[in-house]
Amino acid sequence: MALPAEFHEIAKRVNNWGRWGADDERGTLNLVTDGVVRAAAAEVRTGRRIPLALPLKEDGVQAGLIPGRINPLHTMVQINRELFGPGGVACSDDTVTMGLQAGTHWDALTHVSHSGRIYNGRPADTITAHGRAQFSGIDKAGPIVSRGILLDVARAKGVDRLPGGHAVTPEDLAEAEALTGTAVRAGDIVLVRTGQIALCLAGDRHGYAFPSPGLSIRTPEWFHARDVAAVANDTLTFEVFPPEIDDLWLPVHALHLVEMGMHQGQNWNLEELSTACAETSRYTFLLTAVPEPFVGAVGTPVAPAAIF
Amino acid sequence: MALPAEFHEIAKRVNNWGRWGADDERGTLNLVTDGVVRAAAAEVRTGRRIPLALPLKEDGVQAGLIPGRINPLHTMVQINRELFGPGGVACSDDTVTMGLQAGTHWDALTHVSHSGRIYNGRPADTITAHGRAQFSGIDKAGPIVSRGILLDVARAKGVDRLPGGHAVTPEDLAEAEALTGTAVRAGDIVLVRTGQIALCLAGDRHGYAFPSPGLSIRTPEWFHARDVAAVANDTLTFEVFPPEIDDLWLPVHALHLVEMGMHQGQNWNLEELSTACAETSRYTFLLTAVPEPFVGAVGTPVAPAAIF
Amino acid sequence: MALPAEFHEIAKRVNNWGRWGADDERGTLNLVTDGVVRAAAAEVRTGRRIPLALPLKEDGVQAGLIPGRINPLHTMVQINRELFGPGGVACSDDTVTMGLQAGTHWDALTHVSHSGRIYNGRPADTITAHGRAQFSGIDKAGPIVSRGILLDVARAKGVDRLPGGHAVTPEDLAEAEALTGTAVRAGDIVLVRTGQIALCLAGDRHGYAFPSPGLSIRTPEWFHARDVAAVANDTLTFEVFPPEIDDLWLPVHALHLVEMGMHQGQNWNLEELSTACAETSRYTFLLTAVPEPFVGAVGTPVAPAAIF
Amino acid sequence: MALPAEFHEIAKRVNNWGRWGADDERGTLNLVTDGVVRAAAAEVRTGRRIPLALPLKEDGVQAGLIPGRINPLHTMVQINRELFGPGGVACSDDTVTMGLQAGTHWDALTHVSHSGRIYNGRPADTITAHGRAQFSGIDKAGPIVSRGILLDVARAKGVDRLPGGHAVTPEDLAEAEALTGTAVRAGDIVLVRTGQIALCLAGDRHGYAFPSPGLSIRTPEWFHARDVAAVANDTLTFEVFPPEIDDLWLPVHALHLVEMGMHQGQNWNLEELSTACAETSRYTFLLTAVPEPFVGAVGTPVAPAAIF
Repeated sequence: MALPAEFHEIAKRVNNWGRWGADDERGTLNLVTDGVVRAAAAEVRTGRRIPLALPLKEDGVQAGLIPGRINPLHTMVQINRELFGPGGVACSDDTVTMGLQAGTHWDALTHVSHSGRIYNGRPADTITAHGRAQFSGIDKAGPIVSRGILLDVARAKGVDRLPGGHAVTPEDLAEAEALTGTAVRAGDIVLVRTGQIALCLAGDRHGYAFPSPGLSIRTPEWFHARDVAAVANDTLTFEVFPPEIDDLWLPVHALHLVEMGMHQGQNWNLEELSTACAETSRYTFLLTAVPEPFVGAVGTPVAPAAIF
Repeated sequence: MALPAEFHEIAKRVNNWGRWGADDERGTLNLVTDGVVRAAAAEVRTGRRIPLALPLKEDGVQAGLIPGRINPLHTMVQINRELFGPGGVACSDDTVTMGLQAGTHWDALTHVSHSGRIYNGRPADTITAHGRAQFSGIDKAGPIVSRGILLDVARAKGVDRLPGGHAVTPEDLAEAEALTGTAVRAGDIVLVRTGQIALCLAGDRHGYAFPSPGLSIRTPEWFHARDVAAVANDTLTFEVFPPEIDDLWLPVHALHLVEMGMHQGQNWNLEELSTACAETSRYTFLLTAVPEPFVGAVGTPVAPAAIF
Repeated sequence: MALPAEFHEIAKRVNNWGRWGADDERGTLNLVTDGVVRAAAAEVRTGRRIPLALPLKEDGVQAGLIPGRINPLHTMVQINRELFGPGGVACSDDTVTMGLQAGTHWDALTHVSHSGRIYNGRPADTITAHGRAQFSGIDKAGPIVSRGILLDVARAKGVDRLPGGHAVTPEDLAEAEALTGTAVRAGDIVLVRTGQIALCLAGDRHGYAFPSPGLSIRTPEWFHARDVAAVANDTLTFEVFPPEIDDLWLPVHALHLVEMGMHQGQNWNLEELSTACAETSRYTFLLTAVPEPFVGAVGTPVAPAAIF
Repeated sequence: MALPAEFHEIAKRVNNWGRWGADDERGTLNLVTDGVVRAAAAEVRTGRRIPLALPLKEDGVQAGLIPGRINPLHTMVQINRELFGPGGVACSDDTVTMGLQAGTHWDALTHVSHSGRIYNGRPADTITAHGRAQFSGIDKAGPIVSRGILLDVARAKGVDRLPGGHAVTPEDLAEAEALTGTAVRAGDIVLVRTGQIALCLAGDRHGYAFPSPGLSIRTPEWFHARDVAAVANDTLTFEVFPPEIDDLWLPVHALHLVEMGMHQGQNWNLEELSTACAETSRYTFLLTAVPEPFVGAVGTPVAPAAIF
């Protein structure tokens, strides 16, 4: 199906191709300048650290709906293996098989293409089975550290969880931004809380997956206007699902990853963070969310932490 | 083989069992207090970020010497799969199989046991095939963020790389500490550079593995005296190999992980960091090295970053 | 829970420990003598071959109920990779991750232990994470080829499928044996059809798994009396589930694998075979079901074929 | 690089596209008629079974030279896990990750393409990451059982092992055929012994891989003239390596798999078979080599057995 005109119009308005040069593979992460990082570090006032990753385990987020995206199969290959007979030092060792986007993760810019193109206008067929993503693999992102800001849309609306299928709009984001008492800035990593992950934490993986609240096709322009570096939220689908436009799946992915070159995070657990922000009335913090540098990968598990 | 008396004597002097309560599973990470983190954040002055992880790829660190510890087998399960026919949005997805300690990693406290015990005196047989590590799995560590300090032993000695088999002694550490112009403090994460990883970066995986410079059995007391939170270096074996005492493999592992409850990092790439520290004469920084929370795992890949 | 007296009494009657020597690791497969194989080959009269394996795919038998027993995750690592540029020969290659008992499989004798023992009285702790099964791993079985005989219990009872929870008794087996017009012989591999696999083929993996018809705790004596070499059927659980005796799970496994040293097969697709046997009134055939020789494995995928 | 004229000429002479219909996905396996199988079963005279598969283990055939083709990583996920507390029945379970062509295997017809085509003239791009091989995946082969005939080229030449780089010619095959005292027939599966696998069995995986004796580009016509169903041998590369024509890698693969639609086997252990054939002066037998039906796979592990 050809993409609708509405999509192409937004795409034109948010497009960043060439903005950081024809060779760029990092997109809006370029907005995290040294100055941004210095300011982010200055957000640390108490030293409290809040983890944002879900536990990685076989009984994890995935419900088998997405082929190949399997929960971690974690196996021991050695258990207290004695190196020189009984009584000495013994080793345990383990391995894992998992979908790189099975748990709390970053999408690489190459996770999605449209019209045969990936970010910066490169051909999508530069992704191959043996070569992986030749450009903009997750290993190109570098350490992701910046100021984080929580836009707690659920809390701003006074609910624990947005209803399934709720499209988070620019107006919703502005409402949540008002709650923070500050403003989203260039280079920020924006965390959008819907509360949906509570379903996953309660063991309802299917309910978590679908229907899901998530970002509206109208939000990329909001992020673009503010020169946000990256966006993450607490859903499986990231954007609202079912989609706003029939048969147009993942338009927000396509706008963020392909047009803007903006990394996205999914399955982030923002529950403890939400409570902490509300209790302290501080919604900004130092965010560390460094990708594992899988070469040419289109995604990676990440263990983000907010530091106050 | 029974452990020698020398080992048991050191063990007694560095033992932390019960220090943070009988229920503790985090060991010396308890030393990273909120205050330590605040001070660590204050180390950020320029905003420069230096990655310390090796790329994760099939042609990685492991040379097949350690059973089960395989380099990442990274495969695409979807490549530009069009969701609704030609012309629309298309997805790529990938999976990995790897040893959790194959690349740049943290050892969990349960990676090693001795005399049937793991950290805090628990029985080693609490690690099982189906239950993994019931206690002190890497998921118990929480976000690891603290002040990092580079002890550049190779640079202090004026060499690019310590010779294979060189045991890094407390005197070597003190010499490198002097180079920093400051002192190791409680809660610090100490990065010890031997230069050995240059062999790995040059493609000589066997030479990298063996013989290797690394920590002497005398260093755990040095770290213990300073209440260090964790130690990482740029070798495969962490401690000197071949070992200082015949047939006594991994005594430093046993002292750190079992007796002290101190996490260890291996295969950290400290080359760019070394240059940056020397150029700026600053050897301390904010270090973020957050473990992936694999439940009950005895190790985890990690993508550490130093922030100046 | 201690095993009930009933179990121990049957165990005593069917026990084969020592029968083929203290060193034996193959159990009743020893009953497949060269003479048995010659006679089995003489069963081939038409040359028709019927496959008995289910397709191996991610959307396979397993429904996630058994930890670690994942359906095959099959990924391409090369797709038409050109060796010397466009126009020449190109290669495709693939890998798999799977539970060894995820699909149509053999249980090795070591798949189950009881009272701390495996087949032939060896200690169960000879199975370790790093050493796998030191004795009676599936690689010790050798090529499994013999006369196959279909006991079509469902057909003998005039039903498509035995009801969930139906315990197949010795009387049921005798009834199905009568249908064949011949008798089970020493060295035979007996295939017991319940019809249950039709649920799996129809996509109902949960209904297939539970409740399930399967062998009664009374059948091992029947097989033992006839010196059967191996038994396979068309269920996930092999034996009736829920079990006949409360809280006594897998007694038939324990009797077959541990006491008798008899290999078992599960998830065998016997539907086409059933039709072929009924149409020709011939229920015996040459059966080839050669295990993949995974060293020290407690199970293996197998692709059995009946040859008429 | 364009394929040389010599290749195209041979291709034209051996091409089987359309021979079994435009829909065919099995190629020369169609030559194994019921009659061929009946005659093959009649080869069984003693009942002796000889396994032809190498053990599947982490320390296996692969030396890391072919990306993604990893030796089996076999891990236990349960070890004597007690179902209802101490004293009862306990289970062990395991998983594997491996290249489908890592050990003794069959190449599916789709393992190789050339000039954008696979067997029967279908487009090569019918192989995709998410769909695997849409046509002629190994699951389409069905049970492979036929008469096997050993062409023991090494023995015919009076050597233990052909020298590395020796191209096995049609003349060599005829010489080995003479040794058998019979003739290759339509529907036969031909096993060509070079003796090369002795290097692998002795632990020299690199020497085994390269240089290797193997089939000459002139042999496909010999097999084609005799309407052979499949060919397997005891090398990693199957065909001679380094290749006979500079920069023309895998021409025999392309001729067999793409042009003829003939399945190939590699890494078959023919040593015990060779001895048995020589001792009995019988070089024909019933061969069972049933593929594991991985859906859309381009190869599969197989555990072949020769039955005399």
